Amino acid sequence: MADAGIEYVRMAEFSWRVLEPERGEFDFEWLDEIIGLIGEYGMEVVLCTPTAAPPRWLVAERPEILQRDRDGTVRSVGSRRHYCFNSEAYREESERVVRVLAERYADDPRVVGWQTDNEYGCHGTTRCYCDDCASAFRSWVRQEYDSVADLNDAWGTTFWSQQYDDFEQVDIPRPTPAQDHPSLALDFARFSSDSVVEYNRLQADILRGANDDWFVTHNFMNLFESVDAYDVGEDLDLISWDSYPTGHVQQAVDEASTDELRAGNPDLLSFNHDLYRSVLDRPFWVMEQQPGDVNWPPHSTQPAPGAMRLWAHHATAHGADAVVYFRWRRCLEGQEQYHAGLRKQDGSADRGYHDATQAAEELFDVDDVDAPVALLHDYENAWALGEQPHAPDFDYWQLLQAFYGGIRSHGVQVDIVHPDTSLESYDAVVAPTVHLATAQLADRLTAFVESGGELLLGPRTGHKDEYGKLASSVQPGPLTDLVGATVDQHESVPPQLEATVSRTDDTQTWYAFRTWAEWLEADGAQPILEYDGDAVEDGRTAAVRNRIGEGSVVYCGVWPEPDLAVDLVGSVLERAGVRRSAVLPGGVRVAHRGGYTWVMNFGSDPITVDLTGEASWRLGDETIDPFDLSIADGDVVDGLSVRILE
Amino acid sequence: MADAGIEYVRMAEFSWRVLEPERGEFDFEWLDEIIGLIGEYGMEVVLCTPTAAPPRWLVAERPEILQRDRDGTVRSVGSRRHYCFNSEAYREESERVVRVLAERYADDPRVVGWQTDNEYGCHGTTRCYCDDCASAFRSWVRQEYDSVADLNDAWGTTFWSQQYDDFEQVDIPRPTPAQDHPSLALDFARFSSDSVVEYNRLQADILRGANDDWFVTHNFMNLFESVDAYDVGEDLDLISWDSYPTGHVQQAVDEASTDELRAGNPDLLSFNHDLYRSVLDRPFWVMEQQPGDVNWPPHSTQPAPGAMRLWAHHATAHGADAVVYFRWRRCLEGQEQYHAGLRKQDGSADRGYHDATQAAEELFDVDDVDAPVALLHDYENAWALGEQPHAPDFDYWQLLQAFYGGIRSHGVQVDIVHPDTSLESYDAVVAPTVHLATAQLADRLTAFVESGGELLLGPRTGHKDEYGKLASSVQPGPLTDLVGATVDQHESVPPQLEATVSRTDDTQTWYAFRTWAEWLEADGAQPILEYDGDAVEDGRTAAVRNRIGEGSVVYCGVWPEPDLAVDLVGSVLERAGVRRSAVLPGGVRVAHRGGYTWVMNFGSDPITVDLTGEASWRLGDETIDPFDLSIADGDVVDGLSVRILE
Amino acid sequence: MADAGIEYVRMAEFSWRVLEPERGEFDFEWLDEIIGLIGEYGMEVVLCTPTAAPPRWLVAERPEILQRDRDGTVRSVGSRRHYCFNSEAYREESERVVRVLAERYADDPRVVGWQTDNEYGCHGTTRCYCDDCASAFRSWVRQEYDSVADLNDAWGTTFWSQQYDDFEQVDIPRPTPAQDHPSLALDFARFSSDSVVEYNRLQADILRGANDDWFVTHNFMNLFESVDAYDVGEDLDLISWDSYPTGHVQQAVDEASTDELRAGNPDLLSFNHDLYRSVLDRPFWVMEQQPGDVNWPPHSTQPAPGAMRLWAHHATAHGADAVVYFRWRRCLEGQEQYHAGLRKQDGSADRGYHDATQAAEELFDVDDVDAPVALLHDYENAWALGEQPHAPDFDYWQLLQAFYGGIRSHGVQVDIVHPDTSLESYDAVVAPTVHLATAQLADRLTAFVESGGELLLGPRTGHKDEYGKLASSVQPGPLTDLVGATVDQHESVPPQLEATVSRTDDTQTWYAFRTWAEWLEADGAQPILEYDGDAVEDGRTAAVRNRIGEGSVVYCGVWPEPDLAVDLVGSVLERAGVRRSAVLPGGVRVAHRGGYTWVMNFGSDPITVDLTGEASWRLGDETIDPFDLSIADGDVVDGLSVRILE
Repeated sequence: MADAGIEYVRMAEFSWRVLEPERGEFDFEWLDEIIGLIGEYGMEVVLCTPTAAPPRWLVAERPEILQRDRDGTVRSVGSRRHYCFNSEAYREESERVVRVLAERYADDPRVVGWQTDNEYGCHGTTRCYCDDCASAFRSWVRQEYDSVADLNDAWGTTFWSQQYDDFEQVDIPRPTPAQDHPSLALDFARFSSDSVVEYNRLQADILRGANDDWFVTHNFMNLFESVDAYDVGEDLDLISWDSYPTGHVQQAVDEASTDELRAGNPDLLSFNHDLYRSVLDRPFWVMEQQPGDVNWPPHSTQPAPGAMRLWAHHATAHGADAVVYFRWRRCLEGQEQYHAGLRKQDGSADRGYHDATQAAEELFDVDDVDAPVALLHDYENAWALGEQPHAPDFDYWQLLQAFYGGIRSHGVQVDIVHPDTSLESYDAVVAPTVHLATAQLADRLTAFVESGGELLLGPRTGHKDEYGKLASSVQPGPLTDLVGATVDQHESVPPQLEATVSRTDDTQTWYAFRTWAEWLEADGAQPILEYDGDAVEDGRTAAVRNRIGEGSVVYCGVWPEPDLAVDLVGSVLERAGVRRSAVLPGGVRVAHRGGYTWVMNFGSDPITVDLTGEASWRLGDETIDPFDLSIADGDVVDGLSVRILE
Repeated sequence: MADAGIEYVRMAEFSWRVLEPERGEFDFEWLDEIIGLIGEYGMEVVLCTPTAAPPRWLVAERPEILQRDRDGTVRSVGSRRHYCFNSEAYREESERVVRVLAERYADDPRVVGWQTDNEYGCHGTTRCYCDDCASAFRSWVRQEYDSVADLNDAWGTTFWSQQYDDFEQVDIPRPTPAQDHPSLALDFARFSSDSVVEYNRLQADILRGANDDWFVTHNFMNLFESVDAYDVGEDLDLISWDSYPTGHVQQAVDEASTDELRAGNPDLLSFNHDLYRSVLDRPFWVMEQQPGDVNWPPHSTQPAPGAMRLWAHHATAHGADAVVYFRWRRCLEGQEQYHAGLRKQDGSADRGYHDATQAAEELFDVDDVDAPVALLHDYENAWALGEQPHAPDFDYWQLLQAFYGGIRSHGVQVDIVHPDTSLESYDAVVAPTVHLATAQLADRLTAFVESGGELLLGPRTGHKDEYGKLASSVQPGPLTDLVGATVDQHESVPPQLEATVSRTDDTQTWYAFRTWAEWLEADGAQPILEYDGDAVEDGRTAAVRNRIGEGSVVYCGVWPEPDLAVDLVGSVLERAGVRRSAVLPGGVRVAHRGGYTWVMNFGSDPITVDLTGEASWRLGDETIDPFDLSIADGDVVDGLSVRILE
Repeated sequence: MADAGIEYVRMAEFSWRVLEPERGEFDFEWLDEIIGLIGEYGMEVVLCTPTAAPPRWLVAERPEILQRDRDGTVRSVGSRRHYCFNSEAYREESERVVRVLAERYADDPRVVGWQTDNEYGCHGTTRCYCDDCASAFRSWVRQEYDSVADLNDAWGTTFWSQQYDDFEQVDIPRPTPAQDHPSLALDFARFSSDSVVEYNRLQADILRGANDDWFVTHNFMNLFESVDAYDVGEDLDLISWDSYPTGHVQQAVDEASTDELRAGNPDLLSFNHDLYRSVLDRPFWVMEQQPGDVNWPPHSTQPAPGAMRLWAHHATAHGADAVVYFRWRRCLEGQEQYHAGLRKQDGSADRGYHDATQAAEELFDVDDVDAPVALLHDYENAWALGEQPHAPDFDYWQLLQAFYGGIRSHGVQVDIVHPDTSLESYDAVVAPTVHLATAQLADRLTAFVESGGELLLGPRTGHKDEYGKLASSVQPGPLTDLVGATVDQHESVPPQLEATVSRTDDTQTWYAFRTWAEWLEADGAQPILEYDGDAVEDGRTAAVRNRIGEGSVVYCGVWPEPDLAVDLVGSVLERAGVRRSAVLPGGVRVAHRGGYTWVMNFGSDPITVDLTGEASWRLGDETIDPFDLSIADGDVVDGLSVRILE
């Protein structure tokens, strides 16, 4: 490991049974020995609490810790994550084991930080339907609402005679003949995320109590929806996530391209990098970097030669301060035998080892990312839209990425922040949807625009209140004055319908959109796009721009296809004075961090880069091979352009 | 509402909890106030019994009312329809609440009628698997069969050692390794439908007992299979149904056309109109007319401009005496927030309001529909074929519509009646399938033909007895003499097989068919179609015509594609002397009622109509815009033709 | 029956309730009468134990015999196979009823053999999740492993803290959040198959105890995976299987061709024939031959004219000594009404009757098949690969057939044998995958090659040990020396990736492959194929050939499409000196048995056969109609060629 340039070794994330073979009998010998070796070779240790896999003896003693499916079926021991976040029994056991571990290594200089548990919520385990959860949910609701009358009012339970007579009647969602009440579903999502937050805090507090110098982190997942990372982040010092590019792209799209099967989609990857960097507004870690082929995607393709190296640099360019590979050596047993490691099953070097070693040699210290643009993201919008998508292909994360891709095509760095974040430092803000909107948020966005900010809003904005009820004024509800227009109609758009808008200026420019269309009524704002296909909505307004104070806001009522996203964002960036490159081809991405410029080629054709000026190359040069990268000195932005050599 | 021309206000269909906030404490103040206002403005009230949504306090007190899924999972409170039709507890509670309501408004002149419950069976709730149902099913079976020996004989239980030793062993269908016994499944379907009938009768009797002048209705659903509307209808004075054209068409076909996404499919709509008109052979109501975009279809498209008006006229042309919109105003809370109303969430007029207002101005009083043709439909055939479709795409309702579309293409009105209905008044009868056939039915059909009727029979006719067993003679069993042919073989036809027949006359005419093929052996009848593709059945007979007495019968052994359906039906109509228009394009329909002729354009291109004579236009004229209609004075039929202006 | 040339009548396979209408009261009158008639007409009787359908009275008395689904749902009475193989109660009852039947007919000369039960495992019933199974599985595991430490070691349970502390913790697979442990899954599959073996032995022993002259058989199914037929076969005297060509082909491929819908796929059929012949290395029976259209495939197409006759000859050519049709007459009741018989529901002759009668006249006595080639098959590989396929379309049986089709295209007979079988008598051995590999097996294969055998190995060979763990050396693990190469990488190949290899000689020959690719490192062996598309693996080795002693081994790292399979196999056969025909078109097959040569046309075009010499025709001649066959005297192999007449 040391030869490979590895600095940190993370381990023990599922090792409860070897650490505590029977209740109270701990065995640290093996771990001490490994830690010793790691220290000897100048590396440092990140330990994990082993709570993601309670051992059989614990389950046998306290079976009430097990989760239940919505229909009541117990989720048994035999894989992992078979515990309920609200189980008092499991909280006791977790506290006990974390305390023993923390105390054991409190004074060990080789241990520098801890990962709590592992991938909270993986395998659909955020939401549990056991009795402990039913009871905890009732308590949570009592906490949120002063009276059952308030609850009925907030949720809106008159519909279908769903009023609660008493808090005791409040229950977790059970199997019902028809759909769930959306406000119950939203609050159950909040409660479930809060349960994880509370469980994580329990661990974090013990670890900090033992050694306040340790960093405490957790490894989040790709576009993971059921746990609010911003909330969990409040109890963490460092955010990390697990990156599996060739797997995640297969989850994201029906048919990944050949290049994506070999190296993933750069925007999907960096969206996660940017999100997890933004949670604490500081560098993050990739805690698990795909080391080769992996076991769980539909197809387990081999990454392209050099892809593991490219990913390490790409993460760094977006703010990673460490890239940790999972796993060191292919495991001979159990569920993940088909998951590559840096070393093969016989211990010899695998493809990822060579990539990782080269990357380790090339990586260098660099300041943090400084992004001029913020993209607003709120897990609660994902939950509300997930419960009532109103179109089979309306996926919250894809909508975010439609706008995100528009930003990244201009080579501009972007933070992905909660709407409550201070927007002061940003020149432009893109909100793909502000679905659940309050007056307070409207005021803050208005203030941002008034003081010269440029704001781009996407569809379904201002549609619902914070409880998931319709606003009583028409959409965009509390944002109406800001937008200068209202939504007369919305519809979901199946593929067989025309989905074309054109610019209202005289440029004769048409754009495709998808999935969602709102027919706008401008009231003060300027129409900038109108429907222009062969459809009943032709001539209706699809987007408007409204000037407010020193800035302006664009409301786009459709889900933009890439060309529209690029152009809409481009205008916003231009007005906001944000420096940007020429529009980049989809497989090529540019990122800036700490005075360097990364140009990364995720495609199978070589490219050539024109820096337009004097910049010198720190790594590589202007010709970049497939799945390779170059790094230029300096913040090269304006006019940087790329040509694909086919 | 009054301004909009509304005459009836239907309400309170899910209002149990506001009517009875706690057991025995009723609150009528709010309802009285609304009824007062309605009366003041000259409108009338249709009330609904609120039983489709038992409140939480009732469920908490008597949880045994809840339904169970087949695997035993309880269907909990939290949406609607969470009650079992066979629950004695729920029957008591229903009786109680309906009695209180009925007595309260028995003498109120503003209340003119009642809707029982709401959409019986919606969300798959006709069939329940609770203990009450198991016990009720045993009683039902005892009622139907004199002894367990009779039961064994009727169902045929020797197969796979399924004999019952005792009535006590009779059970509702439970999870089993292999398929259900089809005769058990058929009787369980009958029992489940009968349970709804009995439950509805309990309500209807109470309502009539309170005020015999009230009409009692229920709102049925699109092509709804599990409840026999003819049976329920026997306890009703008025049949109504809930029409959602852009939603229903998405349920009916894999990919609706652009026009269908905007205005629905006219034949799918009018099939329902004709069915529900025929149940009591009198005008029906549309109790819920789609008012704009709605929440539940896969895609929520916006109806075309004018579509809501077109639907109102279309319903009228097929025998509706009222079109009631659901809902007045978009609801701010709960599961149906994405369901439009005539008014928006802020109370302002929505698109449907304008259409509805215009329609209200244009509608006029008119006599009932008088149809020269009957289409035979029996829910029991749907149940038997649904249990053993023998082809993945054999859907009973689609088969009915294949023949129905053939009739409607000729501009001819059709009743959709149970085979037990008197056929005397019809010139022609089309039976897309007489799957479960008895000798009595064979005799009645024979008598119809002998006395000059023209009969068209579709495939899978005469295949099974009333218990769902094979006839012991070959198909068409008891109809063999009538048909003059037998079925030598049948097969289901996947898309990759040739599916072509040709006429046996010298016209060199080929037709496509789908899904089902029977190889016929004529025995007295004349072959009129033979298989003629590139297939093993080439040369075998696909359809025959048999003359019996004054009339004739055509047996068609294949599921016809549209051209074949149009031509088969056309010949039948011609022989039957039924007046008909030129063959109409699919998006244009003509309907006659009470001396008027409606020409309706469900397409996005304008059309021009040639009335061939002197008729004058009551509404519109011979040029009809997209999604518009015209109404001519008089019964214009022969030779009426339409041209699409593209 | 006798008129039709029928010699054996098999019956009573689901007749428990008519044989024993109530506990202990047996009624043999009806059966005696039928046996009497059969004897009178010179036919013989094969009886079946009726255990596949326990009657309702038994279930009512002893409900603990019922199976449970994995989530605990009881599989109730109401279809068939609703019993657990590990139920002590059911074993008692089975023993009781089998003993009574066996004793009753022990001395009856007309009864010549017995079929145990019926289609073990049909409808997913091999694996049960009841308490009896949990307990039996614990005992089975105790039997297999000396200690819980051994168990932990063998399965590899350290992963995810899955160690067992005690045998009492061992459990059947229950619902879990994530995947099952693959070694648990593999042993549960073994246990479940063993449970069937044990249950079958219980019946077989009783039958043999009553009359040792009886043959005892069981009717297996098409490509049936969950029961190890080799193991069950050890307690049987005769293997039989149930052949439904037009149904099985629809299960095997997404879209069957027109010809396959009419006559099935000859290689899919003969794969089963060859497998079941090989189990006991003696002639087998087809116990259920499809007689016409059947009820259970997606589409119930009519077999081509003559198909039933063709299937009878085809089975004979592959070693069948009897072809028994299911069923004699179409059943009027129950779940299989849509299943044809040789006679129609009214008792008249159906299509299959004529085919069967003609076949009976043409069939003749002949010696057994003598195959020069063995194809290795091990159910345990199917179980291991089924648990971790690592590609959505990696189906073990399809992989076997990819290689099998290559063999059959050369007109060569092949045994399908367990890897433990002696390979001495074979000239060539094809192992489509030796997935679970031991050193012993490696030694045996090496000995085969050293002594002059030609061996062809397919992908995923040598990947895992017998417990389902990865080999600690890289693939092919214990076979590395034999192969002379290792697998550097493997990947699964989605359709959008290039999948082309070319020969390393100078023939400029390209081949397509699918689904799976291994990048080989030759170490002593000669590369014979390399990747050659437009992909990252271009130039890597895809297949090697290694000479060992007198023979050689080819390792093919990809799943071959047909052209590659034919050419790979062709070279192996040539080196092995196996006589072969010209490459046959897909719809035409040649088979040799006992000195005769069958040429069979499964296509809809006529063919002409060139025998290249003096052979005479026993049946038919060189021109063969669609779905027809000819039989030549003598073993005509070399150079036999076929031309399709289109």
